Amino acid sequence: VNVRRLAVIGTGLIGASVALAAKRAGRTEVVGYDPEVQALEAAADRGAVDSPANSVAEAVAEAELAVVAAPVAQLAAQVRAVLEASPDVCTVADVGSTKMGVCSAALGSARFVGGHPVCGSEARGAEHATAELFDGATWFLTPLAATDPERYRLVHGFVSSLGATPVAVDPVAHDRLVALTSHLPHALANLLVNQAGANRIDGHEPLAAAGGSLRDMTRIAGANPRIWIDIFLDNAGPLREALGEHRRQLDRLEQALETGDAGFLAKWIGEAAGNRQQMLADAYPDPGALQQLRVHVPDRPGVLAGITQALGAERINIEDFELQHMSPDRGGTLTVLITGESEAHRAAELLEAQGYGVVVAPVLGEQ
Amino acid sequence: VNVRRLAVIGTGLIGASVALAAKRAGRTEVVGYDPEVQALEAAADRGAVDSPANSVAEAVAEAELAVVAAPVAQLAAQVRAVLEASPDVCTVADVGSTKMGVCSAALGSARFVGGHPVCGSEARGAEHATAELFDGATWFLTPLAATDPERYRLVHGFVSSLGATPVAVDPVAHDRLVALTSHLPHALANLLVNQAGANRIDGHEPLAAAGGSLRDMTRIAGANPRIWIDIFLDNAGPLREALGEHRRQLDRLEQALETGDAGFLAKWIGEAAGNRQQMLADAYPDPGALQQLRVHVPDRPGVLAGITQALGAERINIEDFELQHMSPDRGGTLTVLITGESEAHRAAELLEAQGYGVVVAPVLGEQ
Repeated sequence: VNVRRLAVIGTGLIGASVALAAKRAGRTEVVGYDPEVQALEAAADRGAVDSPANSVAEAVAEAELAVVAAPVAQLAAQVRAVLEASPDVCTVADVGSTKMGVCSAALGSARFVGGHPVCGSEARGAEHATAELFDGATWFLTPLAATDPERYRLVHGFVSSLGATPVAVDPVAHDRLVALTSHLPHALANLLVNQAGANRIDGHEPLAAAGGSLRDMTRIAGANPRIWIDIFLDNAGPLREALGEHRRQLDRLEQALETGDAGFLAKWIGEAAGNRQQMLADAYPDPGALQQLRVHVPDRPGVLAGITQALGAERINIEDFELQHMSPDRGGTLTVLITGESEAHRAAELLEAQGYGVVVAPVLGEQ
Repeated sequence: VNVRRLAVIGTGLIGASVALAAKRAGRTEVVGYDPEVQALEAAADRGAVDSPANSVAEAVAEAELAVVAAPVAQLAAQVRAVLEASPDVCTVADVGSTKMGVCSAALGSARFVGGHPVCGSEARGAEHATAELFDGATWFLTPLAATDPERYRLVHGFVSSLGATPVAVDPVAHDRLVALTSHLPHALANLLVNQAGANRIDGHEPLAAAGGSLRDMTRIAGANPRIWIDIFLDNAGPLREALGEHRRQLDRLEQALETGDAGFLAKWIGEAAGNRQQMLADAYPDPGALQQLRVHVPDRPGVLAGITQALGAERINIEDFELQHMSPDRGGTLTVLITGESEAHRAAELLEAQGYGVVVAPVLGEQ
């Protein structure tokens, strides 16, 4: 799909990246508009916008496709403004993180196709925009009964041309899905780090005593408040539903702890292992064969290059590779995921030959 | 500190690693005992145990130091047995993940020094043991009023010689601390993945739609049930306390969502950002200067080596480095942490010159 004339309404990170990715895919001319002049200038500087417009109407006047990339709180109003200002030939899409509000704001217009690229970037502003932002990402599309099938095909093809994988979903289901897979995790990360931060136990700071598990679980805590306040408020209904179910699951766990119910805990942990395996099954062809190598490495330049070269030279395929930096004095822990026990042991021997101590273990643990 | 004769009671991963690390530090002869004959044989095969013993009494008869590395459920009984069987000259230490039970089982013995190395390995068995397991790890020590100061100094020095950093803490405080920093995160990871796994939304599997945030937050879900059932039950009191506070924090969040209280959410997210910054301050000299580079990479051998070499050749210091594998078709996302904005942009230019698209953003986001 080649959109010759694209309007981007809201030229922050996502809008400008849509423009750059569209230009990468074909000869697209981009007209941009942003209520903040600085944001529009930044997008032009980045080469994302060819013609800055002075109004929504000017931007969409001759567009084939208008992509609305406004903040969640302004999204519904902006989509309505674009639908009103644009000619009938113009298809209107958006990229907001929640879909119920904006889809109902479109008032059943046949020209509107809602969407949400899941690219998880924390950056802001067109200066960070890149044509590669959507490569490999899921891009939810939320067509309604009223949506013109031709327009849906256009947006579907456009999204694919940006490098993303379009996935159709009902807007209500979308918002419940992201409440469960994104907004609930974000809320729990904030709750957890605030609980650890609010306590001081016998002179010890829990945050200072944090191990890898707490760090992993709070990596997304405190994320961009300008984006997240709006998301939490806009999706408050589905998020409260998810929190309510979290509370009911919490009840059962607390009961098991109170009565010392080892049987419940065994079943509960077993279920968690199974669910995690299913989640990994999407990312890896054979999650049960995944082996984890843990290596303690000094904080010294060249260490990572030495390790990746050694494994690369022996054609050992690295599935995941993570360095968790602990401190300049103590060094860090490197975790490498490799499929297959014999491959993992071959890798361990290579690293041991370089003088590292290596601990090998199956990723999914022993059931 | 050089312990000439060390007894290790329980020769699984931790016990055998203590033995190997002690041998690395000096000329230590290790006598081992494990109620499971296979476990003892594995430790001897790994070179961790010099003399396998047939009983606790035989193992500790001539030991200067006995380290009890039994599973949490058997720990109290095993420590008591070792104290009874060992001569007065023998100092007794343990490595259990909880400390209240085992410290009271020691019945105020001057010879006992409780401890807990925080090394977070999910592996089991002496075959995975390594002398490097404790390098850079925190090792909590829980001396009591009755503990002989000489013995405490011995264990403190021994733990340091294994590569760990000893941190003294009261046993009750220890158990509250690990409830908050380890057991609560584990419980929430299990709850979260089970909630996502139990739901199917309009034909969509939440687990299949999981983004990076859900994967990060459930990395520790379903961990080794043989270890974790005992830990949850043994530390049920402090964990229930932590879950109770989690529930109270949840109440406040739900209330804010119900009333649309943007002010509360702003304060709450800001607190989370501050707490996360404090946690990172321990790991990094200047967390505010940390920049995150996100790079989409194809699933192809040599990619990581090319990137780490390019950055290493330019002496760019990598703080953290993480490859999240998405799928063979879609490739993966590489996240690199670098201190300083100009260094980060230098790194981004190097990678862009190799043909990668790079998104740069500050780790702590904009407040």
